[in-house]
Amino acid sequence: MVSRLALTSGEPAGIGPDLCVQLAQQQHQHQLIVIGSPSVLSERAKALNLPLELIPFNDKLPVTACAPGEMFIDACEVAEPVIAGRLNPANAAYVLQTLNIAADGCANNRFDAMITAPLHKGVINDAGVKFSGHTEYLAEKSESDPVMLLAAGDFRVALATTHLPLSQVAEAINQEQLIRVLTILHAELQQKFQIANPSILICGLNPHAGEDGHLGTEEIDIIIPAINKLKAQGLSLIGPLPADTLFTPHHLSDADAVLAMYHDQGLPVLKYAGFGQAVNVTLGLPIIRTSVDHGTALDKAATGNINSGSLHAAIEMAATMAAAQS
Amino acid sequence: MVSRLALTSGEPAGIGPDLCVQLAQQQHQHQLIVIGSPSVLSERAKALNLPLELIPFNDKLPVTACAPGEMFIDACEVAEPVIAGRLNPANAAYVLQTLNIAADGCANNRFDAMITAPLHKGVINDAGVKFSGHTEYLAEKSESDPVMLLAAGDFRVALATTHLPLSQVAEAINQEQLIRVLTILHAELQQKFQIANPSILICGLNPHAGEDGHLGTEEIDIIIPAINKLKAQGLSLIGPLPADTLFTPHHLSDADAVLAMYHDQGLPVLKYAGFGQAVNVTLGLPIIRTSVDHGTALDKAATGNINSGSLHAAIEMAATMAAAQS
Repeated sequence: MVSRLALTSGEPAGIGPDLCVQLAQQQHQHQLIVIGSPSVLSERAKALNLPLELIPFNDKLPVTACAPGEMFIDACEVAEPVIAGRLNPANAAYVLQTLNIAADGCANNRFDAMITAPLHKGVINDAGVKFSGHTEYLAEKSESDPVMLLAAGDFRVALATTHLPLSQVAEAINQEQLIRVLTILHAELQQKFQIANPSILICGLNPHAGEDGHLGTEEIDIIIPAINKLKAQGLSLIGPLPADTLFTPHHLSDADAVLAMYHDQGLPVLKYAGFGQAVNVTLGLPIIRTSVDHGTALDKAATGNINSGSLHAAIEMAATMAAAQS
Repeated sequence: MVSRLALTSGEPAGIGPDLCVQLAQQQHQHQLIVIGSPSVLSERAKALNLPLELIPFNDKLPVTACAPGEMFIDACEVAEPVIAGRLNPANAAYVLQTLNIAADGCANNRFDAMITAPLHKGVINDAGVKFSGHTEYLAEKSESDPVMLLAAGDFRVALATTHLPLSQVAEAINQEQLIRVLTILHAELQQKFQIANPSILICGLNPHAGEDGHLGTEEIDIIIPAINKLKAQGLSLIGPLPADTLFTPHHLSDADAVLAMYHDQGLPVLKYAGFGQAVNVTLGLPIIRTSVDHGTALDKAATGNINSGSLHAAIEMAATMAAAQS
């Protein structure tokens, strides 16, 4: 199946436009539609010395990929001219507009899935819009409570808590939250990843998973009871396991995903394993959304010195998920 | 240089004796002296169907390795007969005695370094001796305040805090502690690892290293000031960096060690990278001590189904450190 995939071009002063232009040089299997500014993309192609013919997208077009050097574009314009590498709060509204077009298009079935190039949280906040990330923005827009998962091939790590100061992590872990996250993770592994009976490994919160209560009691008081409730419903869960031994072949080889209790327990090892190829997936949204795992790399915009591995992987994953749900 | 290396055989019901017997089948470059029970080692060799000739060690022997099938032994007896796989608190004092012989021998220059096979904390505590680990035991014995480092080849991760419940980590991070740990780490990389001007990467405490204070303030209030004080003394320090991007080739390739702020921020990625080959090193002790990175594996004792990669690596590292200090 050929899918219609919306790709937001991200922060215009960063490497998002570069990634889109590089991508357009290749033959794709799917119909990729870039959401962004025609002028920014054309200028970036010129700077990179790459050919680019923009084809305005409309819903009536057949669902087919375009040729190398061509790009379907759903246009949306910047407020002020863009200088590569230089952030400008005047263009923050444009970045959010590209997200809205992609997300609304997915909700209305104009697109089958959306993939996001990196944006810059700081400049959006500087423009006076409180913004803590793509995931949270899309969650609010769709009134859902999603789960963040990073994947490098078949190695998948979801997070029970995301962007919290470390001092607030322990108190944020509770049974209700764990049951919600594990239920979404289980259901999405079935629906979006087509794994009939997913096996999930669960990290303890404390070192050595609390070592029978000697190094913390959250495993005994919260995590084990939550796991037992879900096991009684038929979920295939293993844990809580010590995080420092969980990420070894003995455990990982039979597992479909890992649930880490917090950001820096799970993501360093995932990004080490999948460097440059990791994909950020938002589970529990009514739409399909994947993303690169890196930032805007302002210093590399318009240089050509970028690695599009993560974006390729994000597109492939979005297409696979779209096919699974069709 | 041929070194005299003491090897404690660890929990007698676990795989420690098996590791010692397997090791004795090979030709070594160094004089390895096993500290443990002759009867336990002989019985384990029989169970594994491996030859073993015990040679009582004394200080007058020339410093040379023995032949394959032979083992230098500094004897020390169990209180009750050992059944592989079955813990017995009556033998806890024996396990501690092997540690004392090795540590005292290092302090008195009978041995150049000590390597420890795994012991079982639980059974020592069950015997009524408060015991939280080799590292802490040796620290107390030598009245020092050591730093835990795990190494897989040239990939080294030290910890600012070790075995604390996660809820207590943030409050345990302070400038004095960081300066102490980094000073020891820097000095030991010079002395024990022979790195003239070691470069150390430092993780933030919070996700994204606090993102300029948006995700926690410990980086601004504590970690950056501590780093700046040490940089002013000439230490080569980089950070605080987000832990999920620090462990990628871009940063790691030029670094000699990483300082993680807590156990599960640094060890999952180190053990993933160095599976079965990682070595635990205690820095800041007056003696040299390395260890395997795994536990007693009671279910595998006397089966022959074990991997001695970590012990081999621990011996090599101890010998290299001993040579550096001689």
